[in-house]
Amino acid sequence: MRYCYLLLFLTLPVFSYAQPPVEVNSKRLNLTLEELAGFGRNPDGAPNRVAYSDGDLKARVYVRELMDQAGLETSIDAAGNIIGRRAGKSPGLKPLALGSHIDMVPLGGNYDGCVGSMAAIEVAKTLDEQEIILQHPLEIIIFTDEEGGLTGSRALAGALKKQALKVVNSTGYSIGAGIERLGGDTTRLSEIIRPRGSLAAFLELHIEQGGILDEEQLDIGVVEGIVGIRWWDVTVSGMANHAGTTPMRQRQDAMLASARFIQAVNDEALKMEGNQVATVGRIKAAPGAPNVIPGEVVLSLEIRDLSQTVIDALFKNIRERATEIAKSSGTTFDFKGLDTTGKPALTAPFIQKEIAKAASALELTHKQMQSGAGHDAQDMALICPVGMIFIPSKKGISHSPDEYSSPGDITNGANTLLNTLLQLDRSLSE
Amino acid sequence: MRYCYLLLFLTLPVFSYAQPPVEVNSKRLNLTLEELAGFGRNPDGAPNRVAYSDGDLKARVYVRELMDQAGLETSIDAAGNIIGRRAGKSPGLKPLALGSHIDMVPLGGNYDGCVGSMAAIEVAKTLDEQEIILQHPLEIIIFTDEEGGLTGSRALAGALKKQALKVVNSTGYSIGAGIERLGGDTTRLSEIIRPRGSLAAFLELHIEQGGILDEEQLDIGVVEGIVGIRWWDVTVSGMANHAGTTPMRQRQDAMLASARFIQAVNDEALKMEGNQVATVGRIKAAPGAPNVIPGEVVLSLEIRDLSQTVIDALFKNIRERATEIAKSSGTTFDFKGLDTTGKPALTAPFIQKEIAKAASALELTHKQMQSGAGHDAQDMALICPVGMIFIPSKKGISHSPDEYSSPGDITNGANTLLNTLLQLDRSLSE
Repeated sequence: MRYCYLLLFLTLPVFSYAQPPVEVNSKRLNLTLEELAGFGRNPDGAPNRVAYSDGDLKARVYVRELMDQAGLETSIDAAGNIIGRRAGKSPGLKPLALGSHIDMVPLGGNYDGCVGSMAAIEVAKTLDEQEIILQHPLEIIIFTDEEGGLTGSRALAGALKKQALKVVNSTGYSIGAGIERLGGDTTRLSEIIRPRGSLAAFLELHIEQGGILDEEQLDIGVVEGIVGIRWWDVTVSGMANHAGTTPMRQRQDAMLASARFIQAVNDEALKMEGNQVATVGRIKAAPGAPNVIPGEVVLSLEIRDLSQTVIDALFKNIRERATEIAKSSGTTFDFKGLDTTGKPALTAPFIQKEIAKAASALELTHKQMQSGAGHDAQDMALICPVGMIFIPSKKGISHSPDEYSSPGDITNGANTLLNTLLQLDRSLSE
Repeated sequence: MRYCYLLLFLTLPVFSYAQPPVEVNSKRLNLTLEELAGFGRNPDGAPNRVAYSDGDLKARVYVRELMDQAGLETSIDAAGNIIGRRAGKSPGLKPLALGSHIDMVPLGGNYDGCVGSMAAIEVAKTLDEQEIILQHPLEIIIFTDEEGGLTGSRALAGALKKQALKVVNSTGYSIGAGIERLGGDTTRLSEIIRPRGSLAAFLELHIEQGGILDEEQLDIGVVEGIVGIRWWDVTVSGMANHAGTTPMRQRQDAMLASARFIQAVNDEALKMEGNQVATVGRIKAAPGAPNVIPGEVVLSLEIRDLSQTVIDALFKNIRERATEIAKSSGTTFDFKGLDTTGKPALTAPFIQKEIAKAASALELTHKQMQSGAGHDAQDMALICPVGMIFIPSKKGISHSPDEYSSPGDITNGANTLLNTLLQLDRSLSE
């Protein structure tokens, strides 16, 4: 007993400015994640829960039940988002929101979106169980069809374009028909738009989907922002010719020029300081026969970075290299920029600080990093300050049945989410 | 009159060891070529006379009429080859043969095969008109379906495999059904096999299908041989991953490794002395999305040369480079050799000499060169000594509606063919 008092005395100065961390129920959290993974599988057992599929519908029923059990008042909005509400002590304050998504790409993994969704619900359950009432109202949002184009969050931000509703995904349902299938109402989408400033903050926990935390053996990523994305179709034109009769030195080989270009894309991305990435993922050579020198190659170029200036500068460098390659190979390069919505979205620095503080209080190692993938948080950033928390993805594998994050890492993420929420609730109501 | 005798006296010593060149009817030759081009066209006028198509059938009727008019005794053999025969003075001698093909690749050109076919018939017509009777019997052979796999010449050489008859071309007919359509009889193919040594020689005039003669402004190519061809499917395996979340230095990018490989193929082909060529004409990246780092790329590798030793050595060098690239990029390379029939086929040196002599007598510039493309002559080389004569292809364009050889060059080629035939007839009957 004396010993206990001594311990209290010794530790008190450390925690004098902060509450000791509250913790979620790790076992329950990981169990719900496992149960969620049971919904939407191929006959061979591989995860396949594309938005609007039967598996998605069943999983949503399960999720709503969990939210009910966590004492949340649940509803489905016109975009099909599942929203669970909990009142705060000071009803004048704007809500704090947590959320993510439970849909996946075809043959995806059981962690992308799911970890953040189950953790958000577990946070609400923990608050309920421990009878902690926040100053702010709380909203848990499970967004509709993140993988198909951030559908639910875009609807909340008023950024969902009408033509997007016509896009059909691998289930055969259009986004419009899919939303109706989830219990939404596409004729009333305008009613759910959240005005800028209508939420106090939004937090999303997510797997990293990259290998940085795993490689560096860190617990938590404090996301500085979600990268912007630009896409181009690059057409390389040479001269198709007979592969047997055209001497090596007389060729205008679009394939060879493309090979040099792909190498140049890589070189230029590495040459600049920073975390920018540039990728050639798609290629098509015409006529495409082993015995014909390709006359035309069309390939994709994608550049991502947190800074639009960096994206533009890298593209300029790549384009200059293409001009050199064209000159030396007797080919031409044509760049067609594609319509993309991926502008960089920065997270709020004050939330980044709270996340780092929460992680430190939980004795978790952490680093600032960017999100190379798009997330619902990037649309929510149009409405309110946002924060994102990453946990390690084993070997950085994502959008694959091999995706994996450990139960311990998932619990660390949920605890960081919970304590960031608690800190924000305090700091934003001061 | 006195002047004429003087001229005769002055020129006689020059031609004392050779007959003055005989010449074909240039106008008639180029007219038949033009008329032949009228058979087998797309609605937009583009040439499209694939073997066994209606256009091919109509063109064959036209060709057989021309052969009849040239005094040839025509027939169609079991493989659908059109054969025109003319008796020689010494029936004990084996026949000399000339020929080529009139079928084309889909959207091909009006010169590949056609020039050699029309020139062979024009040679027969000229002999008939000028009442020149050779010592040897003469055969003019218009081969069936050269583009679909040297079908007619392979049948004569006894090298046409049974399974080839099942291959369906762009007309929808299988080779077997196509042969029947031409008036052949696939049950009697064994009867038309020509034993080795059963012909005295075979000559084929053809467009170069490359740009060497055109670039060097030469009239005639004396073909030393037809290159051998080897094909491989190369599978490059890396790790598919998220293009946004995977840092440049953590990638195992099968596309980047493939780009380095394509460059290495080009470098290695250029590094060796000689005329070998190596081509990557086909490429497929998986999963093939702009936002995914390719995990697997399958590409074609083709190497051609007159020497099998050179082909093997170049492949060895390329394979070593692939091993280096694999090591430095975290990928693996797998080479699968494909079944090909393209072994190098050499032409007879004594025929090469006669071609060069004939060209010189016609005051045509010429050079020794290889054929990078396959030809019926390569199968005929299994039966008898062969010779090939090339004329320039404008800009080296081939297998394209833009294929072109000038009327003057075509006439030069036909005259070289005619005079080589006359010389061989003399030298082989001595």
